[in-house]
Amino acid sequence: MKNAIIAQSGGPTAAINASLAGVISGALQSDRIEKVYGSLYGIEGILQEKILPITAENMTDDDLNILKQTPSSYLGSCRYKLPKDFSDTTIFDQIFSFFTRYNIGYFFYIGGNDSMDTVYRLNEYACHIGYDIHIMGVPKTIDNDLDVTDHTPGYGSAAKFIATSVKEIALDSNVYDLDSVTIIEIMGRNAGWLTAASALARTDGQCAPHLIYLPETTFCYDKFLSDIARVHKQHSNVVICVSEGIKTADGSYVCEGQSNGLTDVFGHKNLSGTAKVLEAYVREKLGYKARGIELNVLQRSAAHCLSKTDIDEAFAIGKSAVEAALKGESGRMMIYERMSDAPYTIRISSTDIQNAANAEKVIPASFIHAETSDITDDFFTYAQPLIMGEVHPIMKKGVPVHLVR
Amino acid sequence: MKNAIIAQSGGPTAAINASLAGVISGALQSDRIEKVYGSLYGIEGILQEKILPITAENMTDDDLNILKQTPSSYLGSCRYKLPKDFSDTTIFDQIFSFFTRYNIGYFFYIGGNDSMDTVYRLNEYACHIGYDIHIMGVPKTIDNDLDVTDHTPGYGSAAKFIATSVKEIALDSNVYDLDSVTIIEIMGRNAGWLTAASALARTDGQCAPHLIYLPETTFCYDKFLSDIARVHKQHSNVVICVSEGIKTADGSYVCEGQSNGLTDVFGHKNLSGTAKVLEAYVREKLGYKARGIELNVLQRSAAHCLSKTDIDEAFAIGKSAVEAALKGESGRMMIYERMSDAPYTIRISSTDIQNAANAEKVIPASFIHAETSDITDDFFTYAQPLIMGEVHPIMKKGVPVHLVR
Repeated sequence: MKNAIIAQSGGPTAAINASLAGVISGALQSDRIEKVYGSLYGIEGILQEKILPITAENMTDDDLNILKQTPSSYLGSCRYKLPKDFSDTTIFDQIFSFFTRYNIGYFFYIGGNDSMDTVYRLNEYACHIGYDIHIMGVPKTIDNDLDVTDHTPGYGSAAKFIATSVKEIALDSNVYDLDSVTIIEIMGRNAGWLTAASALARTDGQCAPHLIYLPETTFCYDKFLSDIARVHKQHSNVVICVSEGIKTADGSYVCEGQSNGLTDVFGHKNLSGTAKVLEAYVREKLGYKARGIELNVLQRSAAHCLSKTDIDEAFAIGKSAVEAALKGESGRMMIYERMSDAPYTIRISSTDIQNAANAEKVIPASFIHAETSDITDDFFTYAQPLIMGEVHPIMKKGVPVHLVR
Repeated sequence: MKNAIIAQSGGPTAAINASLAGVISGALQSDRIEKVYGSLYGIEGILQEKILPITAENMTDDDLNILKQTPSSYLGSCRYKLPKDFSDTTIFDQIFSFFTRYNIGYFFYIGGNDSMDTVYRLNEYACHIGYDIHIMGVPKTIDNDLDVTDHTPGYGSAAKFIATSVKEIALDSNVYDLDSVTIIEIMGRNAGWLTAASALARTDGQCAPHLIYLPETTFCYDKFLSDIARVHKQHSNVVICVSEGIKTADGSYVCEGQSNGLTDVFGHKNLSGTAKVLEAYVREKLGYKARGIELNVLQRSAAHCLSKTDIDEAFAIGKSAVEAALKGESGRMMIYERMSDAPYTIRISSTDIQNAANAEKVIPASFIHAETSDITDDFFTYAQPLIMGEVHPIMKKGVPVHLVR
């Protein structure tokens, strides 16, 4: 009987530990897997032999429940990239020597684009040397930019936190009887899925965010001012959501402070983000009270505001990865397939890892209004189900309980 | 029978509408108050006659429940200051002319320091001209800097959001196997109550924040570096909470970028806050990966993370203000008196408004470690009860429902 090892990689999310709980649960329950190991700090734990034995005793059902509500990566993470080819096999030999010594027959890697590339290369190498192992990728990323899968575990919870926070900030922005512009900066360098999710705040009478700027469309300072002027006729407090990665026509990021005529005042570019640059621009050009807000790292770690749909699915896709590996699959990434929008139903299956590795899925044109650069109804149909349902976390001393190594 | 008018003032909180709900509930239920009005944008609504009639029909019990979970100020707010004396009574005459025309016998003002000053002056003027009215102040502020009252409505929910977020960010900061410093900037210009609340994250195995810097103690760059070095021996990922208002010995705010030898790189001072200044400083001096995070406006508006204790108390203190006014009180601010720490019990009473107006309560010396500038156990005893209990908000389409005018 073979052993299994699990690792987490890339930027953490609020749901990546739910997938870990799913994999652990599936692996511990299987009578075809002997021992279960966690690799600390992604693939680096295997290279440095930093390994955590996981048993039904040190990871009880109660622990798994707490793990499902714990943000960040329980096993730690890395941003390690494997060599592009097999011209030098030192690293690969090191990894497979570990697999041999630990009798590993199953490797589960929970991560994003780069991690799926790791799964692809390790599986290729296993075939190359004829090593019998089942290597499966479990997707995660708040950015929702992985190809093939309908959406990624982690996106729904980030989207729910963003929509909730934007709705709350919009109320806050409306409190004084004056003209103001609030600019909320949202994560997403090349794909605007998270920024688009801010539109889910537009419910029960709330019409903010009034303007949305995605990295999928070119940002134009003149249009930005005329957009604000248009909205301002109806709303004295304008709320704007922008992706951190918006770029002007010359290809430069707005956060670099180029091409807006205000470069000289920004100083060190690491000190200000897109929202702060636009805040200064609005103040300078329009004279309104302006406020730039970064939703920052809470977008991926606010486990106090989880989407139940996301967490249930993230657990299920982790567990399904174990089932798929036990059925003999390898070199594949687990995916969600959407069967129906209403009622929302998905099916969990898998795809050849080559379809997913290194691809970056941006928002399709049908989800973006050609003129306003805002989102279309099709996006609502797509994204609304992903933020439904709440997880009320187990609390202790007034704060959520987390599982820590 | 006389009418009542209610207004909200100053910066909003996540609990100020719970107090409004309490006042409305008390006023609508009383058979000694005929009509209930809301004044829009604080005292400015009275001056400009922007008035909202509130009835049991347009403000049902269901509405009041939603109001209790709605952040920001439902009636809008202002930062209006009344004249310091009665040498020119134009403004006062305008207000009391309104009171006469609308047959106002009760005025409830929910706000912070400045608002209590308004209550004081209006009550003085009422005595001065012999106008029969009961003017009561209901405290609110996330800053917890109002005198006499044990704590302020709004502080508990802000403290709970801060402790929760810091606990989540600390997990996120720990994900990679490298040296890093995370600096979390928390609101509070002169009083460190909110920054101190970050220590409530230190539970169930979490020891972050490792360092806390309050505005009550002088900030020293050299000590900052030696503090980090000390913590770093045990924790490769150092998590630091700083108040936005920390100052160096020469009295200048750290966020102004003075006196740290890095002034030239900061550019426009509005573009960066305390955390960003310290982030750049750590990177420059220690070479660690450094990250500055502002918890920003969510500290006062994250109604998705309310303290049930805070909301229940905020509602009760609003309702008690009506009872006190009906008993004949005027020119007084409602307060919480702590009867016992364990079990935590409070009593709601009132104090002469002169005791509360314009005073600013900072953290007492007994709550601050003389050497480390961290907080003492006495602070935990004080603050822990205030964040206990959760409000699970009524949700619609995956986000909390709010009551909007």
